[in-house]
Amino acid sequence: MRQFSLAEVSAVLSRTPATLNALLRGLPDTWVLSNEGRSGDGKDTWSAFDIVGHLILGERTDWMPRVRIILENGEARAFDPFDRFAQSKESQDKSLEQLLNEFARLRSENLAALHALNLQPEDFARRGRHPALGVVTLSELLATWAVHDLTHLHQLSRVMAHQYRDAVGPWSAYLGVLHCTGHGA
Amino acid sequence: MRQFSLAEVSAVLSRTPATLNALLRGLPDTWVLSNEGRSGDGKDTWSAFDIVGHLILGERTDWMPRVRIILENGEARAFDPFDRFAQSKESQDKSLEQLLNEFARLRSENLAALHALNLQPEDFARRGRHPALGVVTLSELLATWAVHDLTHLHQLSRVMAHQYRDAVGPWSAYLGVLHCTGHGA
Repeated sequence: MRQFSLAEVSAVLSRTPATLNALLRGLPDTWVLSNEGRSGDGKDTWSAFDIVGHLILGERTDWMPRVRIILENGEARAFDPFDRFAQSKESQDKSLEQLLNEFARLRSENLAALHALNLQPEDFARRGRHPALGVVTLSELLATWAVHDLTHLHQLSRVMAHQYRDAVGPWSAYLGVLHCTGHGA
Repeated sequence: MRQFSLAEVSAVLSRTPATLNALLRGLPDTWVLSNEGRSGDGKDTWSAFDIVGHLILGERTDWMPRVRIILENGEARAFDPFDRFAQSKESQDKSLEQLLNEFARLRSENLAALHALNLQPEDFARRGRHPALGVVTLSELLATWAVHDLTHLHQLSRVMAHQYRDAVGPWSAYLGVLHCTGHGA
């Protein structure tokens, strides 16, 4: 495995707000508010709006709090579980534009806080305890933060494409995104 | 099926260059030049760099030329096949930044040309002939242009996430994008 690089992780994390902004701000509601229908367990799937709300919650409650738990408590204290469905409460009465602004602000603050920790190469091997997955390292947490952005960009492109599932006619055979079953995100 | 909306399609098409720019410009090479390894048929899979090259080729040879064939020839003349692997020749010796600029310029020119056609609602039902798929309509072609952007954004997020497949440790179980098999794009 390559050596962990905070610069490489930050390069992705710092770009996500502008990426979502370019993709979503001002888009017609068809693209922003529609989801993929009911999932197998009967719950509503997520819209672009829901996804941005979920990313905001991660900034508030998940990533940096877990970094701090690893640095302060190591394996002695398990992370608080991440409520992956709490965004609907937090996002209601907000516009997509407000959510995009909020996400950009929180991400920027969190990256500033992360860099202020002045982490050294040996810190990335420090260990923490995930409530379900068991022992994890700080580098795994930080890598996951970046890949979590990418998994939701992956989901977002799929949710949007789904709205044109019929409109593309026979071309659907060639459009891989229309054959993605979601793999849980 | 909802009525076709050119404004809705254009809203996606016009945002893709800025989205790719925000996501990719200035990223470390790990994210930009790495692919997902060899595919099942032994061919190299695509990097972010390759994907932008492919989108440029679509702007040059696929979308607007096909719009014009439908309007001028209807079903009488099949579209030229789209060479989905020609980008490596076109992109060599260029930087990602040059490709992003070129894509943005071509997309902007093509959208201007599309709007200059002043298409009317009845035009969207006009028919053309795809060399493999058979009869298609203008609205299907335009919807496919937008979903083609989304399928490559979907692929891009997956290719990037793949680079951290090991780095995330046990979290890979939760990251859907790492379980995406590509569905052909």
